[in-house]
Amino acid sequence: MMQHFLTTESLSKDQLTTILDAAESFYNIDGGHVKKVPLLRGKTIVNLFFEASTRTRTTFELAAKRLSADVLNININASATVKGESLLDTLRNIEAMNVDMFVIRHQDSGAAEFISKHVAPGISVINAGDGRHAHPTQAMLDVFTIRRIKDNFENLKVAIVGDLLHSRVARSQIHALRTLGTQDIRVIAPNTLLPACVETLGVQAFQNMEEGLDNVDIIIMLRLQKERMQGALLPSEHEYFNLFGLTPERLALAAKDATVMHPGPINRGVEISSEVADGIQSVILQQVSNGIAVRMAIMSILAGSE
Amino acid sequence: MMQHFLTTESLSKDQLTTILDAAESFYNIDGGHVKKVPLLRGKTIVNLFFEASTRTRTTFELAAKRLSADVLNININASATVKGESLLDTLRNIEAMNVDMFVIRHQDSGAAEFISKHVAPGISVINAGDGRHAHPTQAMLDVFTIRRIKDNFENLKVAIVGDLLHSRVARSQIHALRTLGTQDIRVIAPNTLLPACVETLGVQAFQNMEEGLDNVDIIIMLRLQKERMQGALLPSEHEYFNLFGLTPERLALAAKDATVMHPGPINRGVEISSEVADGIQSVILQQVSNGIAVRMAIMSILAGSE
Amino acid sequence: MMQHFLTTESLSKDQLTTILDAAESFYNIDGGHVKKVPLLRGKTIVNLFFEASTRTRTTFELAAKRLSADVLNININASATVKGESLLDTLRNIEAMNVDMFVIRHQDSGAAEFISKHVAPGISVINAGDGRHAHPTQAMLDVFTIRRIKDNFENLKVAIVGDLLHSRVARSQIHALRTLGTQDIRVIAPNTLLPACVETLGVQAFQNMEEGLDNVDIIIMLRLQKERMQGALLPSEHEYFNLFGLTPERLALAAKDATVMHPGPINRGVEISSEVADGIQSVILQQVSNGIAVRMAIMSILAGSE
Repeated sequence: MMQHFLTTESLSKDQLTTILDAAESFYNIDGGHVKKVPLLRGKTIVNLFFEASTRTRTTFELAAKRLSADVLNININASATVKGESLLDTLRNIEAMNVDMFVIRHQDSGAAEFISKHVAPGISVINAGDGRHAHPTQAMLDVFTIRRIKDNFENLKVAIVGDLLHSRVARSQIHALRTLGTQDIRVIAPNTLLPACVETLGVQAFQNMEEGLDNVDIIIMLRLQKERMQGALLPSEHEYFNLFGLTPERLALAAKDATVMHPGPINRGVEISSEVADGIQSVILQQVSNGIAVRMAIMSILAGSE
Repeated sequence: MMQHFLTTESLSKDQLTTILDAAESFYNIDGGHVKKVPLLRGKTIVNLFFEASTRTRTTFELAAKRLSADVLNININASATVKGESLLDTLRNIEAMNVDMFVIRHQDSGAAEFISKHVAPGISVINAGDGRHAHPTQAMLDVFTIRRIKDNFENLKVAIVGDLLHSRVARSQIHALRTLGTQDIRVIAPNTLLPACVETLGVQAFQNMEEGLDNVDIIIMLRLQKERMQGALLPSEHEYFNLFGLTPERLALAAKDATVMHPGPINRGVEISSEVADGIQSVILQQVSNGIAVRMAIMSILAGSE
Repeated sequence: MMQHFLTTESLSKDQLTTILDAAESFYNIDGGHVKKVPLLRGKTIVNLFFEASTRTRTTFELAAKRLSADVLNININASATVKGESLLDTLRNIEAMNVDMFVIRHQDSGAAEFISKHVAPGISVINAGDGRHAHPTQAMLDVFTIRRIKDNFENLKVAIVGDLLHSRVARSQIHALRTLGTQDIRVIAPNTLLPACVETLGVQAFQNMEEGLDNVDIIIMLRLQKERMQGALLPSEHEYFNLFGLTPERLALAAKDATVMHPGPINRGVEISSEVADGIQSVILQQVSNGIAVRMAIMSILAGSE
């Protein structure tokens, strides 16, 4: 089985499906709330966050508690690295406390993988976002959300819209969708926010919403980091919304039963209009609920408890 | 039953009595410690604090843990609102994680009620203090403390002393006491710290300790926020103590078995002398203990409302 | 039995041995991981830290959770003392919430003892480090680590190396080792970092590694607080390492099976070389693991659960 969960890129279709099935099992038979189970009782999970993110940390903390694990939150800025200790020494020290799993958030790409290569045998590492590289639990909850709505991945048309250049989510989504069989993945962004050679990921690039959204089944909006505005990459929020904001008119270009997704937090009136965000085709809040089930699935699979 | 707990004003005598009886049930038969019970096992309670208050947050966290609930502490300043997300979006996101109850502390009057009107069905909201408006769990622990000592509420004479203008506690206390049948409620404060038309709350106003304390059974001292001193409302701490501080001499004006209360933290030598605060008639620390039982009662009653 | 755990100085050989035996019992029969036990279920342990220390706080939090206790972390700087409340009032308030144990970290020597003299009957206090005075749980985990490796304490030769002047750990170690029967305890430090009259503690002082390390069984390196460099006590990190750093060459002066210890976090290349810190004779990480078991032992003994 898996020991770490670092990227969606490294996983087979079977492994992705195992995670999605496990997430499904945490829902009640009636499809309702995700309830507490004793699967990880006695296990210790450490949220090791080198980059503050209350939202992400909360979802992992809650997933761990729903599995009955003990959780330690360690914000590493406020901790031992201040005293000049190296990252590996900090890690060794925490793992010596007999912990079972690290959830790592770090501003540098590759940090979770680096840590996974140095932890003691038997300890698992989950990547909760590393630099611009990957945010695989977010991508898994996105494909889980899609699977709960659509029949299959093969015939789907998916558009990912927004700041692909800085998005660790988008890379992880594209890899997961490709592995699950989705052929038609489109990315839509202004030229300045498209990575070079984005087509090598197996996607088709558009710089125009009207073309890109044509008849798609899934629209995944990315969050626009407002700090990008300060640079020369974007003219203004208003202009961005005019060109790339998801409005009811543009949504009408997609398939009739198209689904709107967003990882949150949303910027209303910047990348998405309130009518669409709160509309009947939006599953933005279901994504949050699904995120708990998916993180529980990943944690329990890594712990070998499934 | 109740879905939310927002003010004492909105509650009937029966509802108040139900809460007080439930709080009593959390004490052992011998009246000793409040122990852990499994009533809310598997439930998730979120302390959503928009205003820092370690003391209040701790009492709710402990009450939730004594009920075996899982607790998340979210300080909203350090969280998503910084990223420009609206309050309602933050709320929707947290509730999408399948939480059961919000404990809200906010600097604006009406915040908890506003939130209660927008949460999903089945989620309960507890007001842990909103602006100058209400602090109803504090008021409930105060009336619970009174009920554990005195025979009945009807014949009580109660004096509330201090900064009534800025006190969210006093308003909640007056409403609860009136509903429970107390006729003789007095407020004692300098003119600058009395709200306009305070008599409309059903109390008698005094600007003089000697008159106001005459033969009362309960003296509730309010905390003097030291920051009020900076303004023009008060001359000096020393002068305030001279005029409105509770000393042994002034306590002697009350009934022989009068009880002294204070919500804490106390300012020794400002609103109360150490002799009185630590004296045999003071129940200030019992109030703290009772606060755990009362919060457990409110939480378990709201959780039983689904 | 013991009500508080404040210093190693005040404990008899029997009491120390009781703690060490209890710590041993938390290890599996196979000597593996320390697992969760229900000994303190329903108890509330408060980490009351007046001085930030994520590392130490984490070890106590984890020990408490492994015993199934509820844990409250209170950083007292961010709390009520800011509002002008006295230390004793803060303490009384928290204990009124029916807590069972305080873990105290404070920058002033004697703080934990002061608090232990003022808590309500039935509440226990653990000293998690007070000023330059004592850090007795660290000392206990050190002697526990020694006992797991060596046959007995009587015939041991132990060298403690480094900043003895500012070390609260070293004082506690010396007292524990002396009580357990160790005769040959040496302290090695530059003159400026040796307390006056250090010999009155029953140790022999050396200002030279080569002499002091001769044939010792245990080498305990102390952490060099980098802030000492700013003062006139030390010339430079490099010069310190030249004179007092533990290198493979110096380690070779000790007994062949000598054990290297350090309380962490280590300063590589300042007080210890990486070869030694990561070498086969180092038990630095075992010390961390043992620290959980020892703190569980102390907590359960104080709670009367042993």
